[in-house]
Amino acid sequence: MPLTPPYYAVIFISTLGEDTAGYAEMAERMLELARLQPGFLGIESAREETGITVSFWEDLESIRQWRDQSEHRIAQELGQSKWYRSYELHIARVERYKRFPDRY
Amino acid sequence: MPLTPPYYAVIFISTLGEDTAGYAEMAERMLELARLQPGFLGIESAREETGITVSFWEDLESIRQWRDQSEHRIAQELGQSKWYRSYELHIARVERYKRFPDRY
Repeated sequence: MPLTPPYYAVIFISTLGEDTAGYAEMAERMLELARLQPGFLGIESAREETGITVSFWEDLESIRQWRDQSEHRIAQELGQSKWYRSYELHIARVERYKRFPDRY
Repeated sequence: MPLTPPYYAVIFISTLGEDTAGYAEMAERMLELARLQPGFLGIESAREETGITVSFWEDLESIRQWRDQSEHRIAQELGQSKWYRSYELHIARVERYKRFPDRY
């Protein structure tokens, strides 16, 4: 996905606790839902000990709408009460974009 | 690491090719070196099929210095010629930061 700045990134870095029942299914469902949101540009995810998910959005309003999406709200609450040991969230305005190779 | 915006994030998303000889050692060495750079605030990394590394920096000048660091230059060249199938790089100004739990 070649992107043209400015756009926004939500960087979500997390560690899971011991009870991960239902987590993978919910994470998968949230990926599906995010893709349907207005202003969605892309999402990448990887987990080892730490999990990193970066989603890209047209503007801050799209991010707000995604934060407030009803099913996502429930996931956020379950995340805090059940799955996450810790997380940090960075919301950032992307100013430069580069890719290799330059043409796919 | 509690952070106070504004600061900068370098989001590096990559896929590896078939020849990964020497890659893990170089990646480890680059983590060590980045931590020694002026303006370095933190780094997180995870790889499954896709690898995501997010590093945090005080300002764009710190990012330029890290980009131009001599040993890092060599790693970048080896990355393009040998290890990476593809990558994308997003340089972003972080405007909001949140963490859970709020106190560790």
